[in-house]
Amino acid sequence: MTGPDPTDVDPPGRDGGSADVAAANAAFYAAFEQADVDAMAGIWDDLQPEALTCIHPGWPALRGREQVLRSWSALMANTEYIQFFLTDVTVAVEGDIAVVTCTENVLTGVSETGGAGAAVATNVFRRRGHGWRLQVHHAGPLLSELDGQP
Amino acid sequence: MTGPDPTDVDPPGRDGGSADVAAANAAFYAAFEQADVDAMAGIWDDLQPEALTCIHPGWPALRGREQVLRSWSALMANTEYIQFFLTDVTVAVEGDIAVVTCTENVLTGVSETGGAGAAVATNVFRRRGHGWRLQVHHAGPLLSELDGQP
Repeated sequence: MTGPDPTDVDPPGRDGGSADVAAANAAFYAAFEQADVDAMAGIWDDLQPEALTCIHPGWPALRGREQVLRSWSALMANTEYIQFFLTDVTVAVEGDIAVVTCTENVLTGVSETGGAGAAVATNVFRRRGHGWRLQVHHAGPLLSELDGQP
Repeated sequence: MTGPDPTDVDPPGRDGGSADVAAANAAFYAAFEQADVDAMAGIWDDLQPEALTCIHPGWPALRGREQVLRSWSALMANTEYIQFFLTDVTVAVEGDIAVVTCTENVLTGVSETGGAGAAVATNVFRRRGHGWRLQVHHAGPLLSELDGQP
């Protein structure tokens, strides 16, 4: 992934580990950029496979590891080129759970965002013995007519 | 709030408290339905005000308690009537943090969803001494052309 240093996050997690979480978050987008199905499978949690939730922009919630990973395989197979620039990244760590919010700025190509060019995301990670694993990914489209804040 | 029993959640939190979290989640939507600014202020966390994030459907992320509550005041002042029916509610509790995902089915009126009629939401709650408080609300529109899953 190109763009801002993924470890340059604000605010830092109170309980430590925020740099590791930011790295896991960056790895998630890198797996999508590289259309790496195996890397994507390794990023999502496998200890509570039924607890996984993935909401692609405009889509209903997908539940469970099998359905979630199948959606990523389909998306990556149908995306010729995509590059993310993450901005407005925040990481909040509390014990063994971490919540990342960020803006996904998409450089080009047919994208997860349905061509909108940008989305906002909430990603929830769980700390496992082998590192931080993704449990919830929720990306919502930024609608251009609403880009100005109220 | 009308609709399915908010305590009828699946799967139950491993660490307990999922019924309380579901009740807090229902109270959040009830505050919006009733345009109750004070109730809404009480639902959002006030111990880490800078950590609050709110993403209305199609909007960029709003940060911090002041900006978040101001957006709710504006939304509620501009919503004549709204009623939520929550479906597909899941609650995951891990220690003092809880993640709720649900589908917001909006009955009528000018709505947070921009008229789309439905949205998907991820709500993150923190357990405080005085109960569960909302830290992150992320609602994304359900786009009708994408209602069919891949």
